[in-house]
Amino acid sequence: MRRMVFVLLAGVALAGVVASMAPASGQADGAAAPVFGVTIPPGYRDWRLISVAHEEGNLNDLRAILGNDVAIKASREGKLPFPDGTIIARLAWSYDRLEESEKAFGRPQTFVAGPPKNGVQFMVKDSRKYASTSGWGFAQFNDGKSADEAVQKSCFSCHETVKARDFVFNRYAP
Amino acid sequence: MRRMVFVLLAGVALAGVVASMAPASGQADGAAAPVFGVTIPPGYRDWRLISVAHEEGNLNDLRAILGNDVAIKASREGKLPFPDGTIIARLAWSYDRLEESEKAFGRPQTFVAGPPKNGVQFMVKDSRKYASTSGWGFAQFNDGKSADEAVQKSCFSCHETVKARDFVFNRYAP
Repeated sequence: MRRMVFVLLAGVALAGVVASMAPASGQADGAAAPVFGVTIPPGYRDWRLISVAHEEGNLNDLRAILGNDVAIKASREGKLPFPDGTIIARLAWSYDRLEESEKAFGRPQTFVAGPPKNGVQFMVKDSRKYASTSGWGFAQFNDGKSADEAVQKSCFSCHETVKARDFVFNRYAP
Repeated sequence: MRRMVFVLLAGVALAGVVASMAPASGQADGAAAPVFGVTIPPGYRDWRLISVAHEEGNLNDLRAILGNDVAIKASREGKLPFPDGTIIARLAWSYDRLEESEKAFGRPQTFVAGPPKNGVQFMVKDSRKYASTSGWGFAQFNDGKSADEAVQKSCFSCHETVKARDFVFNRYAP
């Protein structure tokens, strides 16, 4: 069973939000993001796929939602709320035209993932530690470094629009 | 090490394309697709992510490219050609607007994977068995059943447009 550990970043503790714990073996050596104290889960790029999406507008990206074993199991069962131990990762890449396929299809129509873009985001379920935000801790990292406090604070209010689905926008894509 | 097995579908053998072998343990009990004799690899939905894409036009889908361990390793290293044992899976879903995010973003901009669409496709590398198609066997399955012969035969000619990249359109998305 994988143990998740959150390391408190000195000086950024917010009252009642984060508790400190000893690092687990294999923990990535990275500073915790402010507000929720989440660190980048080791090996997240190897997690299984929950779903895919495309964002237009300012984001203009192609994205994949990956989940750890707890997340995948819960997603597949479709049972809410997600259990403690769930971690969901949102990866994103540039929304790029694929020129080679124009010859294959006879017209431009294909968009593929280019370089990474818009950082990587995580949602971590711990109903006790993150009770004030309905059990979820949020974090965004850009190029391996945590985004600033304003970014971390902005996550929950948007996710509240899907409160009825335990604050998670995506659904498992079979 | 995973052993891939291709079961010859009686009556659809094409000269020089497919050789018959004994089924490996764990082989999914499904008929092989015509032309290349590929069967649905067990557990492919649990494979790791290579990349994501969106197709406009008649396909109008969101897609994920998954790979078995051999495929993932080769994709990450970026070394061509892909080695024997590579299997790449293309999954696809309906390209659907996500209404809930309109409230979050203040405008419609999100597209997510809806129900499965356009079947599932596989590319299998075996340079000896599939020598006549540059080492690749192709297959498409719709709702678990192989698509007809005309579909299977149509794969290679399109993929020839990326012959310089060992016939694979996608690139690993880090």
